[in-house]
Amino acid sequence: MLSSKKPNLSFIHRIFSLAHMYKAKRTNQFKDKILVNAFFEPSTRTSLSFESAMYRLGGNVINFNKDASSMKKGESFEDTIKTLSHYGDAMVLRHPEKGMVEKAARYSNIPIINAGDGDGDHPTQGLLDLFTISRRFYLHNQLNVLLVGDIMHSRTVHSLINYLSIYPRLKINILPYSNREPDMDLLYEIASSHSQVPDDIIVDDDTIDLEKYDVIYVTRLQKERSSNNDKVTHIIDRQFLSKTKKDCIIMHPFPRNEEIDPIIDNDPRCKYFEQMQNGIAIRMALLHYTFTDLKIQEKHNNR
Amino acid sequence: MLSSKKPNLSFIHRIFSLAHMYKAKRTNQFKDKILVNAFFEPSTRTSLSFESAMYRLGGNVINFNKDASSMKKGESFEDTIKTLSHYGDAMVLRHPEKGMVEKAARYSNIPIINAGDGDGDHPTQGLLDLFTISRRFYLHNQLNVLLVGDIMHSRTVHSLINYLSIYPRLKINILPYSNREPDMDLLYEIASSHSQVPDDIIVDDDTIDLEKYDVIYVTRLQKERSSNNDKVTHIIDRQFLSKTKKDCIIMHPFPRNEEIDPIIDNDPRCKYFEQMQNGIAIRMALLHYTFTDLKIQEKHNNR
Amino acid sequence: MLSSKKPNLSFIHRIFSLAHMYKAKRTNQFKDKILVNAFFEPSTRTSLSFESAMYRLGGNVINFNKDASSMKKGESFEDTIKTLSHYGDAMVLRHPEKGMVEKAARYSNIPIINAGDGDGDHPTQGLLDLFTISRRFYLHNQLNVLLVGDIMHSRTVHSLINYLSIYPRLKINILPYSNREPDMDLLYEIASSHSQVPDDIIVDDDTIDLEKYDVIYVTRLQKERSSNNDKVTHIIDRQFLSKTKKDCIIMHPFPRNEEIDPIIDNDPRCKYFEQMQNGIAIRMALLHYTFTDLKIQEKHNNR
Repeated sequence: MLSSKKPNLSFIHRIFSLAHMYKAKRTNQFKDKILVNAFFEPSTRTSLSFESAMYRLGGNVINFNKDASSMKKGESFEDTIKTLSHYGDAMVLRHPEKGMVEKAARYSNIPIINAGDGDGDHPTQGLLDLFTISRRFYLHNQLNVLLVGDIMHSRTVHSLINYLSIYPRLKINILPYSNREPDMDLLYEIASSHSQVPDDIIVDDDTIDLEKYDVIYVTRLQKERSSNNDKVTHIIDRQFLSKTKKDCIIMHPFPRNEEIDPIIDNDPRCKYFEQMQNGIAIRMALLHYTFTDLKIQEKHNNR
Repeated sequence: MLSSKKPNLSFIHRIFSLAHMYKAKRTNQFKDKILVNAFFEPSTRTSLSFESAMYRLGGNVINFNKDASSMKKGESFEDTIKTLSHYGDAMVLRHPEKGMVEKAARYSNIPIINAGDGDGDHPTQGLLDLFTISRRFYLHNQLNVLLVGDIMHSRTVHSLINYLSIYPRLKINILPYSNREPDMDLLYEIASSHSQVPDDIIVDDDTIDLEKYDVIYVTRLQKERSSNNDKVTHIIDRQFLSKTKKDCIIMHPFPRNEEIDPIIDNDPRCKYFEQMQNGIAIRMALLHYTFTDLKIQEKHNNR
Repeated sequence: MLSSKKPNLSFIHRIFSLAHMYKAKRTNQFKDKILVNAFFEPSTRTSLSFESAMYRLGGNVINFNKDASSMKKGESFEDTIKTLSHYGDAMVLRHPEKGMVEKAARYSNIPIINAGDGDGDHPTQGLLDLFTISRRFYLHNQLNVLLVGDIMHSRTVHSLINYLSIYPRLKINILPYSNREPDMDLLYEIASSHSQVPDDIIVDDDTIDLEKYDVIYVTRLQKERSSNNDKVTHIIDRQFLSKTKKDCIIMHPFPRNEEIDPIIDNDPRCKYFEQMQNGIAIRMALLHYTFTDLKIQEKHNNR
């Protein structure tokens, strides 16, 4: 299973160099391969970009639709995963519950790529975000990164923080929506990776100096993961943008709701549509890697 | 965006000659291309015939399912279209609201083919209907065309009328269901294209001479576009058929409800299943055209 | 239409030898072919294994989704089938109602493969079950087969019994859940094919000698086909297994609910995951046969 738990530089370099190659390329190399796309939660970008990536590699895609499946007849998650793993050569799995992708990996005969599990992890998004930053900045330099939004629930933020942790010279700050602050564990994790003081990581409207940030990463309020009536407390609009550096980049994993005003979409600092394009290349790279890496293939040689 | 707004003969000849070539042919020419099939409203024929057409050209298809997408998380139509346009080389779009396809074209990075927008337009159906007529009759001759049904709401009729307008010698009459008469604008449009008197276009049961028509085009009552209890007031059955010309053709864009009795399906005058077959060839032609026309490709060279 | 009504040995030998060839092989031989997958009832294994099989043959698949189709606009089953049959070269059809697949075959222009119709028949499952038995035992020997479960409603059991009927030396017993006994017709059918006494076919907990069975075929309680509160009255667990032969095989068409305890999944007697793998090979064989058999192709040369 691809997990961002222990990111290492050589893996990242391999994926980024494959992604760079695939940015404008299609191949027929994997025409015999079948990808099982299993989404137990709505998705547009992750699901369709994996599908598009697989077609660009020459392969085929089986889309598993929970609502048209035997889960309607009471089939267990374990049996469903074990079954699905007979029909393809790799599986992309998203699940609304944290930990379920790891659980699935124990039952599958084929490699599983984590496409997001609840508020846990979203490593392929983290990789494409890191790739997008790396195309603009040298990650071993000192850079200031600001994370804005629902830090408590955003799995994309959790994955990005995990990947950023291998670049010790980066500094990270968080500007959370009200009631969506991260827990202390995350602050300690950031502090230890980047030699920061835990109490100084969270910033607020009064103290923040927007001009110092190179990367501003915004996330939506995850209404589906909390039932109270919290509101987006920071909007990225023309006024916000006017206070930032001329050469910073604004990122967002999408979907967005009201937290970024579409009026700024054409500002060259806004990179969210470039993130989407990079998402296809990164996923082509990850599939290529999954289908060719000897260690991954060996583990599943029982097919 | 493919629109039927200003049909021109050279475009039609190009598409018809491609469609003629593709009637019995499959190719691998477009194996690197990906089609995004985005249907925001139910469809069988249009959606599946585009999918079948794309496979017959050697390419792949991504089906966008609104209900499994991030629109569930509040993503806007504009962001959804912009996102989808990253994953393929052309998009087929159907939407329940008139004008939304035109709107989408402003946000997409790839060519969009209109697969029906509310009661507005359905140009690919119009083209396949015209193709079906053209395989039986020479369109520059004088022909009598009768349009039967829910003329108020039928986008296929609107598109067909638009295409027929470039053949001035055709004469058009309308036999509408009760309360589903077209508005006066449409009558003036027909009158001016075909040198007819607006008040003579609509006919009724008492005055109609069924024997004079070469083409009888029937549509269903669009219950989903009007909440009142209107009924189908003309049924095409054996009795109706017995009053028509021996060599006329009966057409219907399907789905049908009760307006055509299946008992006449095998009558050689009934061409609705031939329309379906022509639909695949026409859509192969349109996709071929979209992927190869220099003007269309230039407009989207930002990919 | 592929039906198990009159199974014959030469057909079975042809399919099994193709399936044997396809167990570890992928081909590009049918790259011009399109399969229409039309499931009017939930399915995981049958639907996805046909899709996987078709991709392994090099072809493409169109998935028909009733809920996104024109059936929402009142289109009849007949028109839907007739329409679908224009878009591919063969159709796989599942329907919740017995007899509907046979009905569909009368309207389709392309060969239809029965993927299960209500509590009627499920011939491709029957074939893969027979194939699984045949890979372990020589079917012309004397073997004892025990059918456990909801024999009243299980179409997979009905199909398997039908295929087993051509091997007269087999003996069949049934251990049904309470209130799910088969009707007398089925008992007479079994009795006449295998020279058994009808009254001795059904066994119960008190009289059964589990050690005599070579094949134990288990099915779930079909809750969706009966509204009462029946319960699974036999559970295959470690205790049950301890009473069976060392070299018997335990089979199940899946999905399973509580009738087989997952704790025994790794016992070498349990063949249900092998059944899944065989399912892909059998379906590749059936598709190959459908696309190449001259008699089937001739019947549909009107395309």
